[in-house]
Amino acid sequence: MFQKIFENVRQKSPLVHNITNYVTVNDCANMLLACGSSPIMADDPEDAVEITAICGGLNINIGTLNQRTIPAMLAAGKRANELGHPVVLDPVGAGASALRTETALGLLKEVEFTVIRGNISEIKALALGSGTTKGVDADVADKVTEENLTMTLSFARDFARRTGAVIAITGAIDIVTDGERAFCIRNGRPEMSAITGAGCQLSALTAAFVTANPDQPLEAAAAAVCAMGLCGETACQRMTNLDGNSSYRNYIIDAMYRLTPAALERGANYEVR
Amino acid sequence: MFQKIFENVRQKSPLVHNITNYVTVNDCANMLLACGSSPIMADDPEDAVEITAICGGLNINIGTLNQRTIPAMLAAGKRANELGHPVVLDPVGAGASALRTETALGLLKEVEFTVIRGNISEIKALALGSGTTKGVDADVADKVTEENLTMTLSFARDFARRTGAVIAITGAIDIVTDGERAFCIRNGRPEMSAITGAGCQLSALTAAFVTANPDQPLEAAAAAVCAMGLCGETACQRMTNLDGNSSYRNYIIDAMYRLTPAALERGANYEVR
Amino acid sequence: MFQKIFENVRQKSPLVHNITNYVTVNDCANMLLACGSSPIMADDPEDAVEITAICGGLNINIGTLNQRTIPAMLAAGKRANELGHPVVLDPVGAGASALRTETALGLLKEVEFTVIRGNISEIKALALGSGTTKGVDADVADKVTEENLTMTLSFARDFARRTGAVIAITGAIDIVTDGERAFCIRNGRPEMSAITGAGCQLSALTAAFVTANPDQPLEAAAAAVCAMGLCGETACQRMTNLDGNSSYRNYIIDAMYRLTPAALERGANYEVR
Repeated sequence: MFQKIFENVRQKSPLVHNITNYVTVNDCANMLLACGSSPIMADDPEDAVEITAICGGLNINIGTLNQRTIPAMLAAGKRANELGHPVVLDPVGAGASALRTETALGLLKEVEFTVIRGNISEIKALALGSGTTKGVDADVADKVTEENLTMTLSFARDFARRTGAVIAITGAIDIVTDGERAFCIRNGRPEMSAITGAGCQLSALTAAFVTANPDQPLEAAAAAVCAMGLCGETACQRMTNLDGNSSYRNYIIDAMYRLTPAALERGANYEVR
Repeated sequence: MFQKIFENVRQKSPLVHNITNYVTVNDCANMLLACGSSPIMADDPEDAVEITAICGGLNINIGTLNQRTIPAMLAAGKRANELGHPVVLDPVGAGASALRTETALGLLKEVEFTVIRGNISEIKALALGSGTTKGVDADVADKVTEENLTMTLSFARDFARRTGAVIAITGAIDIVTDGERAFCIRNGRPEMSAITGAGCQLSALTAAFVTANPDQPLEAAAAAVCAMGLCGETACQRMTNLDGNSSYRNYIIDAMYRLTPAALERGANYEVR
Repeated sequence: MFQKIFENVRQKSPLVHNITNYVTVNDCANMLLACGSSPIMADDPEDAVEITAICGGLNINIGTLNQRTIPAMLAAGKRANELGHPVVLDPVGAGASALRTETALGLLKEVEFTVIRGNISEIKALALGSGTTKGVDADVADKVTEENLTMTLSFARDFARRTGAVIAITGAIDIVTDGERAFCIRNGRPEMSAITGAGCQLSALTAAFVTANPDQPLEAAAAAVCAMGLCGETACQRMTNLDGNSSYRNYIIDAMYRLTPAALERGANYEVR
């Protein structure tokens, strides 16, 4: 199934608009190109609305948000909804500051999201309206483990039903659910937390996957999560004892560039619950 | 001829001011350093004017433009004109949104550009005042081919005469013309379209080349286009079957760092029409 | 001594807030991760103050400053002071424009800095209230050499006493002083000036080191400077004749990822005067 989904990305080459933070934006662009998609970035409110209209999908990432880009996110999100374009939300740092939490909650109120992807602390902050995110990383106390997996699945399903969005909680174990079915994904490597923007790249990738597969947002989001994790694994095998997180970042994007739909099908490590 | 032009870049080490998008700005900076130039970036209107004055040349790139940076572009462009500094325009996404098209046209009205570099769709959008750019990539229908080369040359010459700028249209075949002579350049690799910012990097590079060779803007722009394409070729030869677009990006900048003026002279693949 | 300081960074994994330029921000984030720290970036005034509060340290870098981010720098700096968090200032381009010089001087007046790190031209601009910085690089006339070292040490000590901050002047020879003791450091490679943001990365690194070692700001800053230089050396040994500044950038961050506290102790090349 993931083979076909990834083939659609490579064949349709969806144009994805990203309103995203300036820390990891270049990596997001190269990741989108690596998967076969085409990126464009615009964050001036006027420009963002128009650029959204020529794209197939929209990725909103609230890292380094500001008073100028928040209206752009809202306006572009609404426009994407009008046009029936898939929209992904990455609530970077929700729970870490009032502005981030409130902006994410405001977006949730005004925009219908296809997928919301974050770490467990960020998603909890959205679901509970507050949080204790440790910066942009998940709080250790929040971590998804085999022990709390069932409980976390139930939490994710509940939030998916409330929002109408596919919820993707990524970490050591990834959960992707539409409120009914849930994918538990065990691809990826712990070393991925040592590069900045692995999550941002995944959100951009997810936007490309759901844009190319508009009728299967759950499966497309799960495929993107598996693809990212699988590339993290492939890239890790390539590491020499001189390589560190900077080369690893390059290798992950390289791995996506080289990943075939068949290899994704074979390498995807998930169970459906 | 290109040897001497590139030697001037390496010897003079021109300081180039870039008002450019935040997606590819780091690559532009490293590309400028790779060619022997020195980059500086400022986009606050007040700061941009002053920084322009201490530099030798200016590169204006309208990707991720906003209401704060547009006045900075205009003010810095005018200041550069007053000082007789070369100014390059990269109209990223002109034709893709009204704000981008209008900003680029507004800049063309207010600022005298030494070189305008874009893909064929962007340049058409400027020449015709509207367009159908596919995001930041050229529309397939627009592509410069051997079949439409003569027609495109004529279009480029005409636009060069109207604007007084050297026009550089880059794609599979690159055209660089001052309205009289035209360089048709066949360096480069199709894989270059899989990295973000190859065009942005080329515009920054062009600014360095024309700044170091103020009396030969046509030849300097053509040399920059050849150099970028040649580095794309060299970098491609270095690719292993694990490498993808992220390593390719690094290898292109590395290739510029290693490129000698003599190797540029030998490797430049162009005809003058 | 540096071994223990670096161990503290790796063990405490300090969360560092960076208000920094968009040119080199991704490299700063990956450098912080490489040393064992955790980066977060926020530059909206409201957000910056709150994010500062959840972090352990703050790094203020004035490259690509603008009218929106300057108030964020001031407000975050004051909040960090209230909380007793270490604050690092990187006065990128001070002396190159009035806005940069005045912003840096304004910050010095309003915020108590733990460390001020810049090239000699930038630090001179701050100390003298004006300057002739060549863009973001040190003016050749200013360079720290064995000949003018004693005089520069005296200048640095004096500025450290006046500001109450540890002053780190980096270049071919690095000086780190608290007004009493001074470290003269001879790690590093001239090739480091061919990558953008080596200085920005060092400032971010310094913030991590002083945050993890709040009682030893002088030694922590000196350790960061040695670590950065040492990584520049290690990375240089890895360069092939195809590699250039882009790979070098990656290798330096990789080297930090691999650097052990013991290797820093062994490789640090300094004298205390």
